[in-house]
Amino acid sequence: MPETRLENDSMGEIPVPADRYWGAQTQRSYNNFKIGAEKMPAPLIHAFGLQKQAAAEANRDLGLLDPHLSAAIIAAAKEVATGTLDDHFPLVVWQTGSGTQSHMNVNEVIANRAIEQLGGEIGSKSPVHPNDHVNLGQSSNDSFPTAMTIATALDIHQHLIPAIQHLHAALNKKSTQFKDLVKIGRTHTQDATPITLGQEFSGYARQIELGLVRIESCLPRVMELAQGGTAVGTGLNAHPDFAVVFTGKINALTGLTFTSAVNKFEALAAHDALVELSGHLNTLAVSTMKIANDIRFLASGPRSGLGELILPANEPGSSIMPGKVNPTQCEALTQICAQVMGNHVTVSMAGASGHFELNVFKPVIIYNILQSIRLLSDGCRSFTDHCVEGIEADTPRLAELTQNSLMLVTALTPYIGYDKAAKIAKKAHAEQLTLKQAALTLGLVTAEEFDQWVRPEKMTGL
Amino acid sequence: MPETRLENDSMGEIPVPADRYWGAQTQRSYNNFKIGAEKMPAPLIHAFGLQKQAAAEANRDLGLLDPHLSAAIIAAAKEVATGTLDDHFPLVVWQTGSGTQSHMNVNEVIANRAIEQLGGEIGSKSPVHPNDHVNLGQSSNDSFPTAMTIATALDIHQHLIPAIQHLHAALNKKSTQFKDLVKIGRTHTQDATPITLGQEFSGYARQIELGLVRIESCLPRVMELAQGGTAVGTGLNAHPDFAVVFTGKINALTGLTFTSAVNKFEALAAHDALVELSGHLNTLAVSTMKIANDIRFLASGPRSGLGELILPANEPGSSIMPGKVNPTQCEALTQICAQVMGNHVTVSMAGASGHFELNVFKPVIIYNILQSIRLLSDGCRSFTDHCVEGIEADTPRLAELTQNSLMLVTALTPYIGYDKAAKIAKKAHAEQLTLKQAALTLGLVTAEEFDQWVRPEKMTGL
Amino acid sequence: MPETRLENDSMGEIPVPADRYWGAQTQRSYNNFKIGAEKMPAPLIHAFGLQKQAAAEANRDLGLLDPHLSAAIIAAAKEVATGTLDDHFPLVVWQTGSGTQSHMNVNEVIANRAIEQLGGEIGSKSPVHPNDHVNLGQSSNDSFPTAMTIATALDIHQHLIPAIQHLHAALNKKSTQFKDLVKIGRTHTQDATPITLGQEFSGYARQIELGLVRIESCLPRVMELAQGGTAVGTGLNAHPDFAVVFTGKINALTGLTFTSAVNKFEALAAHDALVELSGHLNTLAVSTMKIANDIRFLASGPRSGLGELILPANEPGSSIMPGKVNPTQCEALTQICAQVMGNHVTVSMAGASGHFELNVFKPVIIYNILQSIRLLSDGCRSFTDHCVEGIEADTPRLAELTQNSLMLVTALTPYIGYDKAAKIAKKAHAEQLTLKQAALTLGLVTAEEFDQWVRPEKMTGL
Amino acid sequence: MPETRLENDSMGEIPVPADRYWGAQTQRSYNNFKIGAEKMPAPLIHAFGLQKQAAAEANRDLGLLDPHLSAAIIAAAKEVATGTLDDHFPLVVWQTGSGTQSHMNVNEVIANRAIEQLGGEIGSKSPVHPNDHVNLGQSSNDSFPTAMTIATALDIHQHLIPAIQHLHAALNKKSTQFKDLVKIGRTHTQDATPITLGQEFSGYARQIELGLVRIESCLPRVMELAQGGTAVGTGLNAHPDFAVVFTGKINALTGLTFTSAVNKFEALAAHDALVELSGHLNTLAVSTMKIANDIRFLASGPRSGLGELILPANEPGSSIMPGKVNPTQCEALTQICAQVMGNHVTVSMAGASGHFELNVFKPVIIYNILQSIRLLSDGCRSFTDHCVEGIEADTPRLAELTQNSLMLVTALTPYIGYDKAAKIAKKAHAEQLTLKQAALTLGLVTAEEFDQWVRPEKMTGL
Repeated sequence: MPETRLENDSMGEIPVPADRYWGAQTQRSYNNFKIGAEKMPAPLIHAFGLQKQAAAEANRDLGLLDPHLSAAIIAAAKEVATGTLDDHFPLVVWQTGSGTQSHMNVNEVIANRAIEQLGGEIGSKSPVHPNDHVNLGQSSNDSFPTAMTIATALDIHQHLIPAIQHLHAALNKKSTQFKDLVKIGRTHTQDATPITLGQEFSGYARQIELGLVRIESCLPRVMELAQGGTAVGTGLNAHPDFAVVFTGKINALTGLTFTSAVNKFEALAAHDALVELSGHLNTLAVSTMKIANDIRFLASGPRSGLGELILPANEPGSSIMPGKVNPTQCEALTQICAQVMGNHVTVSMAGASGHFELNVFKPVIIYNILQSIRLLSDGCRSFTDHCVEGIEADTPRLAELTQNSLMLVTALTPYIGYDKAAKIAKKAHAEQLTLKQAALTLGLVTAEEFDQWVRPEKMTGL
Repeated sequence: MPETRLENDSMGEIPVPADRYWGAQTQRSYNNFKIGAEKMPAPLIHAFGLQKQAAAEANRDLGLLDPHLSAAIIAAAKEVATGTLDDHFPLVVWQTGSGTQSHMNVNEVIANRAIEQLGGEIGSKSPVHPNDHVNLGQSSNDSFPTAMTIATALDIHQHLIPAIQHLHAALNKKSTQFKDLVKIGRTHTQDATPITLGQEFSGYARQIELGLVRIESCLPRVMELAQGGTAVGTGLNAHPDFAVVFTGKINALTGLTFTSAVNKFEALAAHDALVELSGHLNTLAVSTMKIANDIRFLASGPRSGLGELILPANEPGSSIMPGKVNPTQCEALTQICAQVMGNHVTVSMAGASGHFELNVFKPVIIYNILQSIRLLSDGCRSFTDHCVEGIEADTPRLAELTQNSLMLVTALTPYIGYDKAAKIAKKAHAEQLTLKQAALTLGLVTAEEFDQWVRPEKMTGL
Repeated sequence: MPETRLENDSMGEIPVPADRYWGAQTQRSYNNFKIGAEKMPAPLIHAFGLQKQAAAEANRDLGLLDPHLSAAIIAAAKEVATGTLDDHFPLVVWQTGSGTQSHMNVNEVIANRAIEQLGGEIGSKSPVHPNDHVNLGQSSNDSFPTAMTIATALDIHQHLIPAIQHLHAALNKKSTQFKDLVKIGRTHTQDATPITLGQEFSGYARQIELGLVRIESCLPRVMELAQGGTAVGTGLNAHPDFAVVFTGKINALTGLTFTSAVNKFEALAAHDALVELSGHLNTLAVSTMKIANDIRFLASGPRSGLGELILPANEPGSSIMPGKVNPTQCEALTQICAQVMGNHVTVSMAGASGHFELNVFKPVIIYNILQSIRLLSDGCRSFTDHCVEGIEADTPRLAELTQNSLMLVTALTPYIGYDKAAKIAKKAHAEQLTLKQAALTLGLVTAEEFDQWVRPEKMTGL
Repeated sequence: MPETRLENDSMGEIPVPADRYWGAQTQRSYNNFKIGAEKMPAPLIHAFGLQKQAAAEANRDLGLLDPHLSAAIIAAAKEVATGTLDDHFPLVVWQTGSGTQSHMNVNEVIANRAIEQLGGEIGSKSPVHPNDHVNLGQSSNDSFPTAMTIATALDIHQHLIPAIQHLHAALNKKSTQFKDLVKIGRTHTQDATPITLGQEFSGYARQIELGLVRIESCLPRVMELAQGGTAVGTGLNAHPDFAVVFTGKINALTGLTFTSAVNKFEALAAHDALVELSGHLNTLAVSTMKIANDIRFLASGPRSGLGELILPANEPGSSIMPGKVNPTQCEALTQICAQVMGNHVTVSMAGASGHFELNVFKPVIIYNILQSIRLLSDGCRSFTDHCVEGIEADTPRLAELTQNSLMLVTALTPYIGYDKAAKIAKKAHAEQLTLKQAALTLGLVTAEEFDQWVRPEKMTGL
């Protein structure tokens, strides 16, 4: 039986654990929402630390908050931002849709921690009140989306963009490394005309390059801050300059370039920018799903598959089949893709389900956005480090398959036309001949012509 | 400039084409919803013919509708049911969410056609009134879902179930045909222990068999009729026995076994049963996606793929590569799967978005349900007829790949343990040896033991 | 710097933390998959404890496993099953798609723990070998899906079904409590004919009742065990009776009725049954989304909304608006619904993406399935306890809105026809009259007729 | 029994209808893919007309195609582009995943039509051969995605962008019209602090404005042309300058600014740009779903809803409830949103499912993309014309609800603090008092202070 103290809010008194800074509203949520194991994501809590620090600085500069109090609030907010107080945020994602309960958790923890620092009595709301001081000129309805925005932008800049660049560089490098390796192309999973392995990887690299362009294209919208709209977008009870001063403070704290939302009503009632971002994460998942699938099929074998690529053997692959090695990084990444694509549906539905002045699916949106960013960041990095960078080509295998290909016949089309070329291919296939044998038997080209026209390395356009 | 006549409704007069039976409300919808090209699906309109016939019969038997009028209504309804009047249903899916406009389209066409047959003046609403007679004791809110139910059940019984059975039979037949063909198994797209081709197809057949069980499992819920609930589920203005008598009539007309919905409030306000059905269509799409993907990879080649299966060559495959043949039926089917899986999201969102006494996403739900049923029915049939039934095995290829497989080493595990077996496989792989060479070189088994223990055909459990 | 010991596998030696039971393969996965924060779900690990216990019992009974060793394995497996060893399972969801690494984690922990109990040297694989003994006659490919099945079935029976029943009972009770309260019905979000509040809740109750029927309908397929198929479904290296004996053991351990999968090839290569289950969870989410949405709108206010229901006031609702109370349980539940519906897309994509003898999206599938089950279970229970059970009706408000409704005019249709009734309603609306005033002014009915025919309480069919 | 003629391809002869221009490959597809009713979309066929015209012009200018033949091909291609030959394109969406069959349909129709114009014999492939001339230097694998790109870009520019602008202008106009109308704000569907109706609409307008920005942001990627890549991206059999010259021709024909794809391997193997576009269509659907939902709830009533807005009464709303008017345009639009959001899942799955050098989900992708564009274009236009432009405010109702609101108490917080303000609101709510009565009773403010501080019109920030 842990010790408790009494905290209170407009509904009365309630016992809370004595060794925790949170207050009555946090405790009510903790009691009333015993749902799942998914806590409000740490990056969001940390972003709230920055948000409260910037708000306190702005209110102080605007003359609304006593410097003594603001200093204590700022100190406590910094502790929230750096994760020192993570154990004081017990609430789950599945709570009120405005995130008010986690927001009040932040207000309560900062207030009590500041009170403590100032020598006051925890729970007394004096000299620092969670609403009147920590939350001065703010509402959950603008602060929670502001924290969502900050957390998202930080994760994008610190994790996702570097990870995409890392994968892109590795694919590019492989494209260069493999630039002279001619191989059979495949369309419809069937043999097609030749290509180089470098060209194949250049396509992958281009997909990832554009993935980065996409993410960056939405940042101006994603990085609009709702702060200053307060309860319904009108800015009631906030200083008229609060939004702008606050934005400057956040930019100074983060080194990024946020802007104050052009229309605060939109910024509270909708999360279209996060739905858009989720769409780009979805597209990145689509790209990496394709790449990882290709790589595992090209590396299939070792003796009964396509066998063109050799992947790093990182772990034993089977608990029953000795010596088996599997494309496990591809598997981790494709599972991540499926998760991100499903998360996108969740975010889209949640984004579409707002009513009037407030979208109340904020926690589920930010939970999914941050999970998708984290998984794609970590997944791309792991895939790069433990798979892509170590990929080698099975050069003899590439050459063998290329030479056998019936689709080399396409090189004859400009000389003898589609219909005659088709006859050669069909004869070779039906009678298990080489293309040349079939061509000569049919008398459609001479041996010299065949050798001159059908040259796989020329067919790749290099 | 086509000729027109004036029709009227509670909002006044409006010109309609003189050669069409529809009335004012149809025309208003036609004018106000110029959206897309997707007309209300024909099977739904035909089901409405049955619904109106059954309603007229029931009201007649209950003494509420003059037999003379009911006879005329029934005659016109039959024409709707058989498709004779399809040109008189011009409305699109994207209209009022109760489907009231298409329902009034049905009422108006039947009324005017009945009036015509009875020698009255089209548009006069006399002696047959679209609301007071054709719609007697009915509302869009119970009639439209009833037509949805009838159309869905008919399409399931007439098209989907036979198509699933057709595919299942073909897969079963292949499973038997291929039962003695030992081949390499593949897990993680990598070589694994042996299996027979018949076993592989037995898995596909089982998936489809269960797909049918799933569809059938939801029919009791799907086949509940909302009729009798009228506007909000209370049955206002309908005879107390109407729901039951109507259900008997529909069963007689269709030869199927519908029931009257246990709770009419649920039947109007939700379409959970169709969401459930859509889930089963989604699962069937998941199953067929897997099967079609396997088949195209197993048939990949002709010279640089897995090459174990030979698919029927139905069409030239390429406009530029002569002689190319592609797994086109697999491609059509997998595209259908992607469509059905997306449709399921649409149906789920629509199903979740009802309010109070009525779900007003009825047209988009039935449009997607009927499309998914149609596509899976036609797709499974086409895939069966033009692909599955003609699949042949490349027997020498199966044997060649099996013999080479390093994963045959698994058969040694019970004798020498996992760790030593792994050593053999790794040595064979690294030095390009056969398993037997590696095993003997390592001195872990004798040649006789190897030959006795490593026998692919024994490893399939047959 | 924590102390380490050396463990080894077929790839060589690797240091692992000295205070952990896991071995080399676990450590490799831990090093190679630094992805996300989502650990393999605890219920799955616990189910693996049951799976290993049952396997050891079965192998012992079949004479394949020394009783001394099996006893040690069983003892260790029990510790896994009860969660005592949870700290020894460090791996994340985002690993190999067969779950082999977590499966080997189980094998290694049990082997080392059993070795320890038997007085051997941890890491020596003697006298208990993780593959040859703990994994005897098993493969990840049948064991991992078996653990998935067990975890899913246990969570369904222990959490989901009771939670659904709990919600259903509460809705039913409210339906009875409110059975005589006549209120206005609403269709298209617009006023419609009367209904009782009890009828409205009966619709909700029916949705949940059917939700339970749906879950139960798929259990025969969900509860098929893959065990016995080993690597590719053929049962290689397992005793021919192993699958059946194992199933009996699991049934004895769990008290549930699992069956051995009819077709083991399907059971490894596909997870259609879990996709189907996910479809039913999706439908349940659709149902609860509708119910929770209705309830929050019906309780909207307190002064500017519909105001028909009064919800329990569990917490202060706003950090800026004093005295505000919000429908927070509805918000938590609807967010859960969005999550479950997105998870369903993930599961469906993952289910569709298997290749050949194995679906390698197993971890992402079970992660989403177990999350959806947990969230719906907890969400329904929280919603019931903290919202539904405390709902009260605002009886005067219900009466006031009912009396004002123009749609009471529908009661006149059987007497004066649709067109005249429409005239009355339109006149009342346009001139802000009561229906009776409009009806009398138009001379279409007498006051006595009006009073006799238009009686809301009669219009509900009660 | 219609007359036929014989056409042939590499598989032999086949009868085709005598009055149709299509050839053997079209006929084979027609026979082999009896699936569904969804024909390849007309905008795609028309775009193929432009593609073939541009290709013929480019090949002519590059000296590869006889001017006489190219003139005939261009003339026929123009007929395809303008829709004159629509009846000659009978194929469905559910065909080969490269769209080769519809591409050959185009080649065959143009060849036969050109032959006819040149006085040759239809079906003779002379003097115009469908592959060697019409398809010169092209493959389905670059031509089909090129036609997809052209069709998409044209539909976006001609339909979608104007429709979005139209809706945006109407919402903006309403925002201005309603700028002085103070009303109650609503968060969590519950009463909140005041806002103006103009502010509310400004949020909607901003959502749509950003929707346009999003669509435009992806056009550089969407408008990359694959043409010139031919079979696998290498450009085999195409003139080295073909891609560039072709792009110039298309730009001249369309007046738009396409570019030649930077990486042709990516352009054939992936459709990430269309997945991205689909993401933006999804976000637009999310935005319009929110707006349409708000509008129907704000207009709910006429007597028992929120009743703040008055929508145009376009049609009778009910077949059983006389005089009922429903928010039908909102219903059509929200159904469209559900469709577009589901289509997005289809496009995403299809985009993720390409293999090696070619994505073979092209037909299903373009079918969904064009449907989503069309539905959003038509839907936004219809919603604007038949709903938004005619919306009026119920001014007395707005004032009445505002005055009653308990959340006006928020204006007191800066003066008396959150806790005391909460007491006032709770007392007023519990005892059915006005805020002022409660405030004075509690003695927390004077009447003068109350009147000075609590002024709804000041609380909107205007």
